Amino acid sequence: MIAKSIEEMLLTKQNSFLIPGDKVASVQEDNPLTHAFLLLTKVRYSKIPVLDGESHLLGLLTMPMITDRMIELMDLSFDPLKDLTVKDVMQTEFDTLKTTADMDLALHLLVDNPFVPVVDEQNVFRGILTRREMMKAFNYIAHNIENDYEITEKASRHHISKLAGTEIKHA
Amino acid sequence: MIAKSIEEMLLTKQNSFLIPGDKVASVQEDNPLTHAFLLLTKVRYSKIPVLDGESHLLGLLTMPMITDRMIELMDLSFDPLKDLTVKDVMQTEFDTLKTTADMDLALHLLVDNPFVPVVDEQNVFRGILTRREMMKAFNYIAHNIENDYEITEKASRHHISKLAGTEIKHA
Repeated sequence: MIAKSIEEMLLTKQNSFLIPGDKVASVQEDNPLTHAFLLLTKVRYSKIPVLDGESHLLGLLTMPMITDRMIELMDLSFDPLKDLTVKDVMQTEFDTLKTTADMDLALHLLVDNPFVPVVDEQNVFRGILTRREMMKAFNYIAHNIENDYEITEKASRHHISKLAGTEIKHA
Repeated sequence: MIAKSIEEMLLTKQNSFLIPGDKVASVQEDNPLTHAFLLLTKVRYSKIPVLDGESHLLGLLTMPMITDRMIELMDLSFDPLKDLTVKDVMQTEFDTLKTTADMDLALHLLVDNPFVPVVDEQNVFRGILTRREMMKAFNYIAHNIENDYEITEKASRHHISKLAGTEIKHA
Protein backbone atom coordinates (compact mmCIF):
# COMPACT_ATOMS: atom_id res chain seq x y z
CA MET A 1 0.00 0.00 0.00
CA ILE A 2 1.26 3.44 -0.97
CA ALA A 3 0.97 6.19 1.66
CA LYS A 4 -2.32 8.05 1.12
CA SER A 5 -0.57 11.45 0.96
CA ILE A 6 1.82 10.29 -1.78
CA GLU A 7 -0.93 8.51 -3.70
CA GLU A 8 -3.11 11.63 -3.64
CA MET A 9 -0.26 13.79 -4.91
CA LEU A 10 0.51 11.21 -7.62
CA LEU A 11 -3.13 11.26 -8.71
CA THR A 12 -3.02 15.02 -9.26
CA LYS A 13 -0.25 14.36 -11.83
CA GLN A 14 -2.01 11.32 -13.30
CA ASN A 15 -3.20 12.99 -16.49
CA SER A 16 0.34 13.74 -17.64
CA PHE A 17 1.58 10.19 -16.93
CA LEU A 18 0.31 8.41 -20.01
CA ILE A 19 2.14 9.31 -23.20
CA PRO A 20 -0.60 8.51 -25.74
CA GLY A 21 -0.04 5.81 -28.35
CA ASP A 22 -0.16 8.21 -31.31
CA LYS A 23 2.81 10.12 -29.85
CA VAL A 24 4.97 6.98 -29.50
CA ALA A 25 7.13 5.67 -32.37
CA SER A 26 6.30 2.03 -33.13
CA VAL A 27 6.92 -0.62 -35.78
CA GLN A 28 4.68 -3.23 -37.36
CA GLU A 29 5.47 -6.90 -36.86
CA ASP A 30 5.94 -7.49 -40.61
CA ASN A 31 8.26 -4.50 -41.20
CA PRO A 32 11.64 -5.50 -42.66
CA LEU A 33 14.42 -5.33 -40.05
CA THR A 34 16.30 -2.78 -42.16
CA HIS A 35 13.29 -0.43 -41.79
CA ALA A 36 13.36 -0.92 -38.01
CA PHE A 37 17.13 -0.29 -38.00
CA LEU A 38 16.61 3.04 -39.78
CA LEU A 39 13.71 4.03 -37.52
CA LEU A 40 15.59 3.24 -34.28
CA THR A 41 18.59 5.19 -35.58
CA LYS A 42 16.46 8.23 -36.33
CA VAL A 43 14.07 8.33 -33.35
CA ARG A 44 16.86 7.43 -30.88
CA TYR A 45 14.53 5.57 -28.51
CA SER A 46 16.17 2.52 -27.03
CA LYS A 47 13.01 0.39 -27.10
CA ILE A 48 9.79 0.68 -29.11
CA PRO A 49 6.46 -1.20 -29.25
CA VAL A 50 5.63 -3.65 -32.06
CA LEU A 51 2.02 -3.53 -33.27
CA ASP A 52 -0.14 -5.42 -35.74
CA GLY A 53 -2.39 -3.72 -38.31
CA GLU A 54 -5.13 -3.17 -35.68
CA SER A 55 -2.76 -1.63 -33.09
CA HIS A 56 -2.66 -4.73 -30.90
CA LEU A 57 0.55 -4.83 -28.89
CA LEU A 58 2.63 -7.86 -29.89
CA GLY A 59 6.16 -7.16 -28.71
CA LEU A 60 9.00 -4.78 -27.98
CA LEU A 61 12.04 -4.08 -30.12
CA THR A 62 15.52 -2.73 -29.29
CA MET A 63 18.51 -2.01 -31.51
CA PRO A 64 20.63 -4.80 -29.97
CA MET A 65 17.93 -7.33 -30.97
CA ILE A 66 18.62 -6.26 -34.57
CA THR A 67 22.38 -5.70 -34.48
CA ASP A 68 22.87 -9.07 -32.79
CA ARG A 69 21.83 -10.66 -36.10
CA MET A 70 24.42 -8.57 -37.96
CA ILE A 71 27.31 -10.18 -36.13
CA GLU A 72 28.31 -13.37 -37.92
CA LEU A 73 31.39 -15.18 -36.70
CA MET A 74 34.08 -12.51 -36.98
CA ASP A 75 32.26 -10.47 -39.58
CA LEU A 76 29.77 -7.60 -39.48
CA SER A 77 27.17 -7.51 -42.23
CA PHE A 78 23.71 -6.25 -43.15
CA ASP A 79 23.10 -9.43 -45.20
CA PRO A 80 21.37 -11.38 -42.40
CA LEU A 81 18.72 -8.66 -42.09
CA LYS A 82 17.52 -9.10 -45.66
CA ASP A 83 15.13 -11.95 -44.97
CA LEU A 84 14.11 -10.98 -41.45
CA THR A 85 11.16 -8.95 -40.19
CA VAL A 86 10.50 -7.40 -36.80
CA LYS A 87 8.60 -10.42 -35.47
CA ASP A 88 11.69 -12.63 -35.95
CA VAL A 89 13.68 -10.78 -33.28
CA MET A 90 11.20 -8.91 -31.07
CA GLN A 91 10.74 -9.57 -27.36
CA THR A 92 7.32 -11.17 -26.72
CA GLU A 93 7.46 -11.58 -22.93
CA PHE A 94 7.10 -8.23 -21.17
CA ASP A 95 5.16 -6.35 -18.52
CA THR A 96 2.09 -4.32 -19.47
CA LEU A 97 -0.36 -2.17 -17.55
CA LYS A 98 -4.10 -2.15 -18.12
CA THR A 99 -5.67 1.30 -18.46
CA THR A 100 -7.43 0.52 -15.15
CA ALA A 101 -4.21 -0.28 -13.19
CA ASP A 102 -3.51 1.51 -9.89
CA MET A 103 -0.48 3.60 -8.91
CA ASP A 104 0.92 0.87 -6.68
CA LEU A 105 1.38 -1.55 -9.60
CA ALA A 106 2.60 1.21 -11.94
CA LEU A 107 5.30 2.27 -9.48
CA HIS A 108 6.32 -1.33 -8.92
CA LEU A 109 6.69 -2.11 -12.65
CA LEU A 110 8.67 1.08 -13.29
CA VAL A 111 11.42 -0.17 -10.97
CA ASP A 112 12.38 -2.81 -13.52
CA ASN A 113 11.22 -1.15 -16.76
CA PRO A 114 12.27 2.22 -18.21
CA PHE A 115 8.69 2.34 -19.58
CA VAL A 116 5.63 0.12 -19.43
CA PRO A 117 3.20 -0.19 -22.37
CA VAL A 118 -0.44 0.48 -21.47
CA VAL A 119 -3.14 -1.61 -23.21
CA ASP A 120 -6.92 -1.80 -23.01
CA GLU A 121 -9.00 -4.94 -22.42
CA GLN A 122 -8.59 -5.94 -26.09
CA ASN A 123 -4.77 -5.59 -25.88
CA VAL A 124 -4.92 -2.48 -28.07
CA PHE A 125 -1.87 -0.26 -27.44
CA ARG A 126 -2.94 2.96 -25.70
CA GLY A 127 0.41 4.50 -24.80
CA ILE A 128 3.32 4.22 -22.41
CA LEU A 129 4.00 5.06 -18.80
CA THR A 130 7.62 6.16 -18.36
CA ARG A 131 10.13 6.35 -15.52
CA ARG A 132 10.78 9.91 -16.67
CA GLU A 133 7.20 11.04 -15.94
CA MET A 134 7.29 9.18 -12.60
CA MET A 135 10.62 10.86 -11.72
CA LYS A 136 8.98 14.23 -12.49
CA ALA A 137 6.14 13.32 -10.13
CA PHE A 138 8.57 12.20 -7.40
CA ASN A 139 10.52 15.43 -7.80
CA TYR A 140 7.24 17.39 -7.51
CA ILE A 141 6.15 15.44 -4.42
CA ALA A 142 9.55 15.76 -2.72
CA HIS A 143 9.43 19.55 -3.16
CA ASN A 144 5.75 20.17 -2.44
CA ILE A 145 4.40 17.57 -0.03
CA GLU A 146 4.98 19.91 2.96
CA ASN A 147 2.70 22.53 1.41
CA ASP A 148 -0.26 20.18 1.66
CA TYR A 149 0.69 17.91 4.55
CA GLU A 150 2.00 18.26 8.07
CA ILE A 151 4.78 15.68 8.49
CA THR A 152 6.22 14.86 11.91
CA GLU A 153 8.71 12.19 12.85
CA LYS A 154 7.16 9.44 14.97
CA ALA A 155 8.52 9.18 18.50
CA SER A 156 9.59 5.57 17.95
CA ARG A 157 11.86 6.51 15.08
CA HIS A 158 13.37 9.40 17.02
CA HIS A 159 14.07 7.03 19.90
CA ILE A 160 15.76 4.47 17.66
CA SER A 161 18.01 7.02 15.96
CA LYS A 162 18.96 8.44 19.37
CA LEU A 163 19.84 4.95 20.51
CA ALA A 164 21.82 4.25 17.36
CA GLY A 165 23.70 7.49 17.93
CA THR A 166 24.57 6.43 21.45
CA GLU A 167 25.74 3.05 20.28
CA ILE A 168 28.02 4.56 17.68
CA LYS A 169 29.58 6.84 20.30
CA HIS A 170 30.21 3.88 22.58
CA ALA A 171 31.53 1.63 19.82
CA MET B 1 14.25 22.20 -1.09
CA ILE B 2 13.25 18.57 -0.66
CA ALA B 3 10.95 17.75 2.27
CA LYS B 4 13.10 16.72 5.25
CA SER B 5 11.22 13.44 5.72
CA ILE B 6 11.79 12.39 2.09
CA GLU B 7 15.41 13.52 2.13
CA GLU B 8 16.09 11.52 5.31
CA MET B 9 14.53 8.41 3.81
CA LEU B 10 16.52 8.92 0.59
CA LEU B 11 19.72 9.20 2.61
CA THR B 12 19.12 5.79 4.22
CA LYS B 13 19.22 4.34 0.66
CA GLN B 14 22.16 6.49 -0.42
CA ASN B 15 24.77 3.75 -0.31
CA SER B 16 22.97 1.69 -2.95
CA PHE B 17 22.51 4.67 -5.31
CA LEU B 18 25.94 4.82 -6.89
CA ILE B 19 26.70 1.98 -9.27
CA PRO B 20 30.51 1.99 -9.06
CA GLY B 21 32.59 2.67 -12.16
CA ASP B 22 34.14 -0.78 -12.27
CA LYS B 23 30.65 -2.31 -12.62
CA VAL B 24 29.70 -0.08 -15.58
CA ALA B 25 30.55 -1.03 -19.19
CA SER B 26 32.52 1.75 -20.89
CA VAL B 27 34.57 2.40 -24.01
CA GLN B 28 37.81 4.27 -24.60
CA GLU B 29 37.81 7.36 -26.82
CA ASP B 30 40.24 5.77 -29.30
CA ASN B 31 38.38 2.46 -29.66
CA PRO B 32 37.32 1.72 -33.25
CA LEU B 33 33.59 2.25 -33.79
CA THR B 34 33.17 -1.38 -34.82
CA HIS B 35 34.39 -2.39 -31.34
CA ALA B 36 31.83 -0.05 -29.75
CA PHE B 37 29.12 -1.47 -32.04
CA LEU B 38 29.90 -5.00 -30.82
CA LEU B 39 30.05 -3.94 -27.18
CA LEU B 40 26.72 -2.04 -27.28
CA THR B 41 25.12 -5.04 -29.00
CA LYS B 42 26.35 -7.41 -26.31
CA VAL B 43 25.87 -5.37 -23.12
CA ARG B 44 22.48 -4.02 -24.29
CA TYR B 45 22.85 -0.71 -22.47
CA SER B 46 21.45 2.16 -24.47
CA LYS B 47 24.16 4.64 -23.42
CA ILE B 48 27.67 4.12 -22.02
CA PRO B 49 30.47 6.39 -20.76
CA VAL B 50 33.59 7.14 -22.85
CA LEU B 51 36.85 7.29 -20.88
CA ASP B 52 40.49 8.06 -21.59
CA GLY B 53 43.39 5.89 -20.42
CA GLU B 54 43.28 7.44 -16.93
CA SER B 55 39.52 6.97 -16.48
CA HIS B 56 38.68 10.63 -17.08
CA LEU B 57 35.12 10.99 -18.36
CA LEU B 58 35.13 12.44 -21.89
CA GLY B 59 31.74 11.63 -23.37
CA LEU B 60 28.74 9.38 -23.73
CA LEU B 61 27.99 6.97 -26.56
CA THR B 62 24.74 5.45 -27.86
CA MET B 63 24.07 2.99 -30.67
CA PRO B 64 22.23 5.56 -32.83
CA MET B 65 25.38 7.76 -32.76
CA ILE B 66 27.15 4.85 -34.48
CA THR B 67 24.39 3.54 -36.76
CA ASP B 68 23.69 7.06 -38.00
CA ARG B 69 27.09 6.89 -39.76
CA MET B 70 26.13 3.58 -41.39
CA ILE B 71 23.28 5.17 -43.32
CA GLU B 72 24.60 6.61 -46.58
CA LEU B 73 22.11 7.98 -49.03
CA MET B 74 19.85 4.99 -49.67
CA ASP B 75 22.39 2.41 -48.63
CA LEU B 76 23.32 0.72 -45.36
CA SER B 77 26.97 -0.15 -44.88
CA PHE B 78 29.66 -0.84 -42.29
CA ASP B 79 32.27 0.84 -44.53
CA PRO B 80 31.96 4.33 -42.95
CA LEU B 81 32.88 2.88 -39.54
CA LYS B 82 36.29 1.69 -40.71
CA ASP B 83 38.12 4.95 -40.19
CA LEU B 84 36.12 6.23 -37.22
CA THR B 85 36.77 5.94 -33.49
CA VAL B 86 34.48 6.58 -30.55
CA LYS B 87 35.59 10.21 -30.14
CA ASP B 88 34.36 11.04 -33.66
CA VAL B 89 30.71 10.42 -32.76
CA MET B 90 30.39 10.63 -28.96
CA GLN B 91 28.29 13.23 -27.14
CA THR B 92 30.55 15.68 -25.28
CA GLU B 93 27.93 17.97 -23.68
CA PHE B 94 26.15 16.22 -20.83
CA ASP B 95 25.17 16.50 -17.18
CA THR B 96 27.42 15.09 -14.46
CA LEU B 97 27.23 14.92 -10.68
CA LYS B 98 30.17 15.50 -8.37
CA THR B 99 30.62 12.88 -5.65
CA THR B 100 29.71 15.66 -3.19
CA ALA B 101 26.36 16.55 -4.85
CA ASP B 102 23.16 16.66 -2.79
CA MET B 103 19.92 14.74 -3.32
CA ASP B 104 18.09 17.79 -4.60
CA LEU B 105 20.38 18.13 -7.62
CA ALA B 106 20.50 14.36 -8.19
CA LEU B 107 16.71 14.11 -8.29
CA HIS B 108 16.50 17.12 -10.60
CA LEU B 109 19.03 15.73 -13.12
CA LEU B 110 17.36 12.30 -13.16
CA VAL B 111 14.19 13.86 -14.56
CA ASP B 112 15.96 14.48 -17.88
CA ASN B 113 18.59 11.71 -17.81
CA PRO B 114 18.07 7.93 -17.49
CA PHE B 115 21.41 7.99 -15.64
CA VAL B 116 23.93 10.63 -14.60
CA PRO B 117 27.69 9.93 -14.53
CA VAL B 118 29.37 10.72 -11.22
CA VAL B 119 32.91 12.19 -11.29
CA ASP B 120 35.38 13.34 -8.66
CA GLU B 121 37.14 16.73 -8.55
CA GLN B 122 39.65 15.56 -11.19
CA ASN B 123 36.82 14.45 -13.55
CA VAL B 124 37.70 10.79 -12.92
CA PHE B 125 34.67 8.58 -13.57
CA ARG B 126 33.41 7.09 -10.29
CA GLY B 127 30.15 5.49 -11.39
CA ILE B 128 26.57 6.28 -12.34
CA LEU B 129 23.39 7.29 -10.57
CA THR B 130 20.36 5.76 -12.30
CA ARG B 131 16.65 6.47 -12.55
CA ARG B 132 16.15 2.80 -11.71
CA GLU B 133 17.79 3.13 -8.27
CA MET B 134 15.86 6.36 -7.64
CA MET B 135 12.60 4.62 -8.64
CA LYS B 136 13.41 1.86 -6.14
CA ALA B 137 13.92 4.52 -3.47
CA PHE B 138 10.65 6.28 -4.38
CA ASN B 139 8.82 2.95 -4.26
CA TYR B 140 10.36 2.29 -0.81
CA ILE B 141 9.43 5.76 0.46
CA ALA B 142 5.86 5.56 -0.88
CA HIS B 143 5.34 2.26 0.95
CA ASN B 144 7.20 3.01 4.20
CA ILE B 145 7.04 6.72 4.99
CA GLU B 146 4.03 6.21 7.28
CA ASN B 147 6.02 3.83 9.45
CA ASP B 148 8.42 6.61 10.40
CA TYR B 149 6.31 9.73 10.00
CA GLU B 150 2.88 10.95 11.02
CA ILE B 151 1.33 12.63 7.96
CA THR B 152 -1.82 14.72 8.22
CA GLU B 153 -3.53 16.82 5.58
CA LYS B 154 -3.28 20.53 6.28
CA ALA B 155 -6.60 22.28 6.91
CA SER B 156 -6.00 24.71 4.03
CA ARG B 157 -5.76 21.91 1.49
CA HIS B 158 -8.87 20.23 2.85
CA HIS B 159 -10.73 23.52 2.58
CA ILE B 160 -9.62 24.08 -1.00
CA SER B 161 -10.62 20.62 -2.15
CA LYS B 162 -14.02 21.02 -0.43
CA LEU B 163 -14.50 24.29 -2.29
CA ALA B 164 -13.42 22.75 -5.56
CA GLY B 165 -15.92 19.95 -5.00
CA THR B 166 -18.68 22.48 -4.43
CA GLU B 167 -17.77 24.38 -7.55
CA ILE B 168 -17.87 21.25 -9.67
CA LYS B 169 -21.34 20.43 -8.37
CA HIS B 170 -22.55 23.90 -9.21
CA ALA B 171 -20.92 24.02 -12.63
